[in-house]
Amino acid sequence: MRTTGVSGYNKGVTETAEFPDPDFGDKTRPVGWLTPTQMDEVRGLMPLVYVDAVPVRVDESGDVVQIGLLLRATESGHMMRALVSGRVMYHERVRDALLRHIEKDLGPMALPSIPASPQPFTVAEYFPTPGVTSYVDERHHAVSLAYIVPVRGDCSPQQNNLEFTWLTPEEACTPQNLAQMQGGQDVLLKQALAHVGRLPDM
Amino acid sequence: MRTTGVSGYNKGVTETAEFPDPDFGDKTRPVGWLTPTQMDEVRGLMPLVYVDAVPVRVDESGDVVQIGLLLRATESGHMMRALVSGRVMYHERVRDALLRHIEKDLGPMALPSIPASPQPFTVAEYFPTPGVTSYVDERHHAVSLAYIVPVRGDCSPQQNNLEFTWLTPEEACTPQNLAQMQGGQDVLLKQALAHVGRLPDM
Amino acid sequence: MRTTGVSGYNKGVTETAEFPDPDFGDKTRPVGWLTPTQMDEVRGLMPLVYVDAVPVRVDESGDVVQIGLLLRATESGHMMRALVSGRVMYHERVRDALLRHIEKDLGPMALPSIPASPQPFTVAEYFPTPGVTSYVDERHHAVSLAYIVPVRGDCSPQQNNLEFTWLTPEEACTPQNLAQMQGGQDVLLKQALAHVGRLPDM
Amino acid sequence: MRTTGVSGYNKGVTETAEFPDPDFGDKTRPVGWLTPTQMDEVRGLMPLVYVDAVPVRVDESGDVVQIGLLLRATESGHMMRALVSGRVMYHERVRDALLRHIEKDLGPMALPSIPASPQPFTVAEYFPTPGVTSYVDERHHAVSLAYIVPVRGDCSPQQNNLEFTWLTPEEACTPQNLAQMQGGQDVLLKQALAHVGRLPDM
Repeated sequence: MRTTGVSGYNKGVTETAEFPDPDFGDKTRPVGWLTPTQMDEVRGLMPLVYVDAVPVRVDESGDVVQIGLLLRATESGHMMRALVSGRVMYHERVRDALLRHIEKDLGPMALPSIPASPQPFTVAEYFPTPGVTSYVDERHHAVSLAYIVPVRGDCSPQQNNLEFTWLTPEEACTPQNLAQMQGGQDVLLKQALAHVGRLPDM
Repeated sequence: MRTTGVSGYNKGVTETAEFPDPDFGDKTRPVGWLTPTQMDEVRGLMPLVYVDAVPVRVDESGDVVQIGLLLRATESGHMMRALVSGRVMYHERVRDALLRHIEKDLGPMALPSIPASPQPFTVAEYFPTPGVTSYVDERHHAVSLAYIVPVRGDCSPQQNNLEFTWLTPEEACTPQNLAQMQGGQDVLLKQALAHVGRLPDM
Repeated sequence: MRTTGVSGYNKGVTETAEFPDPDFGDKTRPVGWLTPTQMDEVRGLMPLVYVDAVPVRVDESGDVVQIGLLLRATESGHMMRALVSGRVMYHERVRDALLRHIEKDLGPMALPSIPASPQPFTVAEYFPTPGVTSYVDERHHAVSLAYIVPVRGDCSPQQNNLEFTWLTPEEACTPQNLAQMQGGQDVLLKQALAHVGRLPDM
Repeated sequence: MRTTGVSGYNKGVTETAEFPDPDFGDKTRPVGWLTPTQMDEVRGLMPLVYVDAVPVRVDESGDVVQIGLLLRATESGHMMRALVSGRVMYHERVRDALLRHIEKDLGPMALPSIPASPQPFTVAEYFPTPGVTSYVDERHHAVSLAYIVPVRGDCSPQQNNLEFTWLTPEEACTPQNLAQMQGGQDVLLKQALAHVGRLPDM
């Protein structure tokens, strides 16, 4: 079976993409952003468009040497590791959404190389019901375009992230680390490593 | 400039994906389908998830020999050529949406080979405003995962399609034929042919 | 470290691609085929072009339900599982090489769907020296284009293959099964499953 | 027909990859390099492994704004535009070959971002005989893995290149410019632009 364990933690997986966003304070909400009420309504009606970014450090030959993961506390106080993930807004290009979410989570000095091609390495379909695909998000159905994003600059955790850590592919794939990932992001991480030819022996 | 001409015709590009769907008659509307009112509301709030399928005939070695295009009349009575295109519904997998839209447009005997991998050959971002990307749909913002789909069976136009025609890559890329495609689907068709290594000299 | 164990078995990994080929008997050797002496000479001079095919059974929606693996005896009498793999010849297209090797290993009734696009899901670089990449072949340096190939017909082991078996993704990824694969083909199998979204929890 | 015009110029398309290489002078030839005699011999026996790189300038969102093309004089004195292209050597990784050829043609300050994934956007099969694929090279059969390579630094033409020019996608796709490309590299350029979603209306 390819179900993914569901627990109270899932709620947090992709939540940084949603409202209210502290960035705005009392500034006007930009076009394309939904009110929390609108968001709740839409969530049960149709799939949302998401992006997942796997931040990586590469060497001169482009070979992946490290993967970047966020550390975050769930509502119940547990620690979880996460990829950069979030919603694509109305009238926003996928590549702009990628850039926005990376800057939101890793800070303005991260210097990400957003892919030239819109072709994702995979599409992660998060369903509210476990077992339909490898990914689950109890809040909604999200279709997420997943990209490898090389990052050259300095990353510092932003918002509700406690830490941002660079791990080798081998470190990222330890059972301990994978167990800290939720909603199937452990599977997505392994798919990313497979795509760049760096899946460790497991 | 990479704008795409917008006209009254665009309205028809992806409309077969929407309601009311004659398939249901007075049967209960399945879970995941929106009422026309809900659909209108959502359209101005967030991007929709779409799929585009490029039906192809391949030879024994997988080489594309023909492309299938739908012929349809627009509201204003003009003829247009179209790819198979439509919305992904709530709680529907992308691969199931692909299959559903192909059967809806080409009939139940088409025998499509839905791709084993969820990786699309490109992502077509249809914006209501021309010029943001190569694709435009005046009704809404749609993020469409585009796939090449080999079809082995007999195709017969369904619903509001008048005809379904197989064209060689060279025939499909004549200026006359491309001019009959709307919303940037001419660009998407050329991208599909480039992906399979069959882009003609133009 | 991402080395792959090397042993006497590696020699057999891709050997079905090489000469002499019993198909010819005393018929003239076709253009593009090397004599064993020429082959030996070239092997130490430059990388060879190879293809790797991962045969799969898919359901109506294209979802992979089974993977096909060959069972073969090595020279030392051990059993090994293998993907379909072999050399691209002079003046042969990659897609024709794929078809030829699949028919050579699975028989003429396999009905493979050779991919429409030449874009492989990955490139496996087999080096004679372990540790450079995840793949190793002590005989030579081969650059192998790897493809998922859905197969609809009846497969029967040919030549020096003892058996051809369909396994679920979960069965294929058991440690016992993976340990029977050589030269890094266990890694390649997992990459293939990651690409189609069917990598089991390991 | 998808033949590509063959002329005396084709000879020059990929020649920078071959011997003798002025980089060595009277230093010892590195392991993996063939003597001109060995090269001639091998060329008629089997396909060579090549890489093609399409150098691009991207904006902050990864969108391609310019393509880089080399200007070179053919033996007959005509001017031709070319992509970066060359052979993969014995015991050299594809990503190292990409880096080496880019530095050889664009100089040591180009700062290319070699792709993290080995998956090429297409595979260009250059045949000595025109008409088999879209690509032709009268000297040999080469199977070339083609990659988009963002370049951030300063590029200066090296070796037998007279000039290196950045062109917008629209400028690169003018009939005049495409006519200066040989061996099917005009097709490959359009495939690259299609892959990054920047194929102009033609």
